[in-house]
Amino acid sequence: MQGQVGTAQILFTRGVPALEALPTTLLSECMQSVLEGPDGKTILQYGNYGGYLPLRTMLGEQYRVAPEQIIVGNGSLHLQDLLTALLVKPGDVVLTEQPSYDRAIQTFRRRGAKVIGIPLEADGVNLAKLEEAIIQKKPAFLYVIPDFQNPAGVTTSAAKRQALVDLVERYDFWLVEDVPYRTLRYSGESLPLLRDLNPARTLTLSSYSKLISPALRVGYLIGPGDLVKRLIKLMEETILAPVLPTQAAVVEFHKRGYFDSNLENLKQLYAPRLQAIIAALKTYLPGVPFAEPEGGFFVSINLPEEIDCSNLLARAQAIGLTLTNGKDFFADPLDEHENTAHLGEHFVRLPFCALTPDQIEEGVKRLATLVR
Amino acid sequence: MQGQVGTAQILFTRGVPALEALPTTLLSECMQSVLEGPDGKTILQYGNYGGYLPLRTMLGEQYRVAPEQIIVGNGSLHLQDLLTALLVKPGDVVLTEQPSYDRAIQTFRRRGAKVIGIPLEADGVNLAKLEEAIIQKKPAFLYVIPDFQNPAGVTTSAAKRQALVDLVERYDFWLVEDVPYRTLRYSGESLPLLRDLNPARTLTLSSYSKLISPALRVGYLIGPGDLVKRLIKLMEETILAPVLPTQAAVVEFHKRGYFDSNLENLKQLYAPRLQAIIAALKTYLPGVPFAEPEGGFFVSINLPEEIDCSNLLARAQAIGLTLTNGKDFFADPLDEHENTAHLGEHFVRLPFCALTPDQIEEGVKRLATLVR
Repeated sequence: MQGQVGTAQILFTRGVPALEALPTTLLSECMQSVLEGPDGKTILQYGNYGGYLPLRTMLGEQYRVAPEQIIVGNGSLHLQDLLTALLVKPGDVVLTEQPSYDRAIQTFRRRGAKVIGIPLEADGVNLAKLEEAIIQKKPAFLYVIPDFQNPAGVTTSAAKRQALVDLVERYDFWLVEDVPYRTLRYSGESLPLLRDLNPARTLTLSSYSKLISPALRVGYLIGPGDLVKRLIKLMEETILAPVLPTQAAVVEFHKRGYFDSNLENLKQLYAPRLQAIIAALKTYLPGVPFAEPEGGFFVSINLPEEIDCSNLLARAQAIGLTLTNGKDFFADPLDEHENTAHLGEHFVRLPFCALTPDQIEEGVKRLATLVR
Repeated sequence: MQGQVGTAQILFTRGVPALEALPTTLLSECMQSVLEGPDGKTILQYGNYGGYLPLRTMLGEQYRVAPEQIIVGNGSLHLQDLLTALLVKPGDVVLTEQPSYDRAIQTFRRRGAKVIGIPLEADGVNLAKLEEAIIQKKPAFLYVIPDFQNPAGVTTSAAKRQALVDLVERYDFWLVEDVPYRTLRYSGESLPLLRDLNPARTLTLSSYSKLISPALRVGYLIGPGDLVKRLIKLMEETILAPVLPTQAAVVEFHKRGYFDSNLENLKQLYAPRLQAIIAALKTYLPGVPFAEPEGGFFVSINLPEEIDCSNLLARAQAIGLTLTNGKDFFADPLDEHENTAHLGEHFVRLPFCALTPDQIEEGVKRLATLVR
C-alpha cells in the first residue's frame, strides 16, 4: 500500500472533484454545439441578466417553479454574497449550523452579519438551541446544508427538516438551504428538500461545481419571484450579466443525456472512496466519533478533547498530510462567554473525492500517528 | 431610406456590439481546442484564483508587467466593484469625469462612496476644477475613461494625460483608467495610457466585451502587485474563482491570430457607422455641439438649454426611438448648491455600433423632430 502511494503529500483540504472526473470531451462537444447553434449569438451578447433563460427554464421544470423564480450566476458563492447584501444590514444576525461551510461564514461576516453557529448533531441542528437563538437574536436567515453537510457530512433527518420549516413559519425569517452535494447520493434514499416542505420561506442554493465542473462556475438560487427579481437587479448592477456560453453548455449537457451518465460515473468513482475513508477511520482511529454520510464530499472527525491538537496542521504537513484549519468552520457561539476554540482545534475535515482509496487509507494512517 | 429601415424601433440605448460581429464559429473552434487540449482539466477545476494564468501571462507581455500585476475576473464591472470595496470606506469621495459611465457611478455609490463629477471638456476633464476637488475632498481615486469616453466620446489629450499623472503624483490618490474601447480606433493615432506615464499610481481596467464578446465576461485589472494580491484574495472570498474555459478561449483566440483579424473586421464594420452618425448629426441637428470621436462606441450631444427636454424619453419612445436617461451619467457636482439637473436632461448618448448607417440616419432624423 505504502509502495503505491509513496511519500507524496496527501491533501485533505478542500472539496475538490477528482480531476479524472472532469468531462472535457463532452463539454467540448456541448460548447461547439451551442456556439454554432441557433442561440450562438445570444450567448455571446449582452442580455439574459438573470442567467441564460433556457437554463432557468430547465431548472424550473426540475424544481417545479417558474423560470422567474430562478437566478443563475457565476457560482453559488457569489449568489450567497449578493443574497446577503440584500437580506442583511450590518449587525444583523445570521444563524448557521456549527460547524458550517467556512466560505459561507466568511461571506456573511464580510457583508456585516454577526454569525452564530447552532450545534450540529448527527441528525441536524440542536432544535432547542436553535429556537433559543431565534427568539434572542431574530436572525435574518438560517443557513443550512441539509444533505451531506459541508464540513460534517451530516444529513438532516426528516423530522428535523419538518421542525425547521415549522420554526420558520412560527418566527419570521428566511431558510437558506445549500444543496450542491444532494444529487451525489451513493446509498440510501433522498429526503425532501426544505423547499418541498415550505417553498414560500425557503431559498435554495445549488450548483454544477460538484456535478459537472467547478470552473464553469454555474450556480443558482431558487426563491420567491419578487426576491429573485431584486437579486437579479443587484446582480445586474454588480456584474452586468453572468458568463453565458458555460450556462448554455450545461443545458446542452443535459439535453444530450450526458448529465445522467456523468452523474452515474461520479457515483461509481466516489462511492468506493467514501467506503475507504469510513473503513480507514474505523481501523486507524477506532473510537473517534464521526457521522457516516451516504453521499457527498466530506467526512469529518471530532478528535477527543484529551488529545493534544496544538500545531496539528504544521505537524501534519511535516509528515506529508495537508489539512484545513478546523477553526474556520466555526462561527460564534450563542453564549458569548462560552469558549468554543477547542471545538475547532479538534475538528478535522476529510474531503475524500479527489483521493484514491489507497491515498485515503495512507492519509488516515498518517493522521492517526499524530493523534494517538 | 425610410423604406429600408421601416418604422421599427431604433435603440440608442447601451454600448452593445453588433450582433453580426460576434465570432461564434471562431470561438467554437477555440473552446474545442482548449477543452480537448493539455489544459482541459485545469480549466474545469478549482484553482487559478486570479484568473487563468496563461491569460495573465499573455496580458503581462502586452502591457509589459508581471502576471502577478494582473487579475482577470468575470467582466471589468465586477473588478470595479471589488476594487471599490477595497479602496473606499463609506463616505469617501470618488471623482469621475462629468458625465461618466452610469454603471461605474452606481457601483461607487453602492459601495458607499460620495461620487463627484468633474466637468469633461473636449480634451478631458477641467483641470482647475479637478485640482480644487482633490484639495477639498481628498478622493480615494479618480475614475477616467481616457479613450473614446463613455458616454461623451471624448479622448483625453496628451497634455491633460500628463497633467493627470502630475496631479496624482502631487496629491496622494489612485488613478483608475478604464480603457475597453481604446483598441477600437478608426482613425488617428493612439495616445499613451496613463499607466505608461505613471505605472505606480495607475490602475488600468479593460475587457474583451467590445473586442470579442460581452457574454464571455472576460475583464481585467492591472496594478501594483501588492494591490492586485489583495484584490485576488477579495475575489476568491467573493466568487472563489472566475469562469475559466472562456478565459482559455480568449488566449486561444489570440494564439490563432483571430484577435487581430476580428479587430480589423470590427473596425471596418464600425468606422462607417461612426461616419454616419457624425454626418447625420451635422445634417439634422446643425449647431448642436458634440465631440467627434476617432473610435469607440459613443457619440453624445448636449442639447441647447433653450430646448424643452421634458419627457424626452417618453416622446422619443412614441416615435420609435429608445433613449437612455441622460441623468444617469451625471454624478454630484463639487459645489453642492449648484443645480446640474438640466445637464442630464439635455444630454443624449448615441451608441452607434449596433445600428446600420441607415438606422443611424433615421434615428437622428427622428431625434431632430423632437428637439427642433
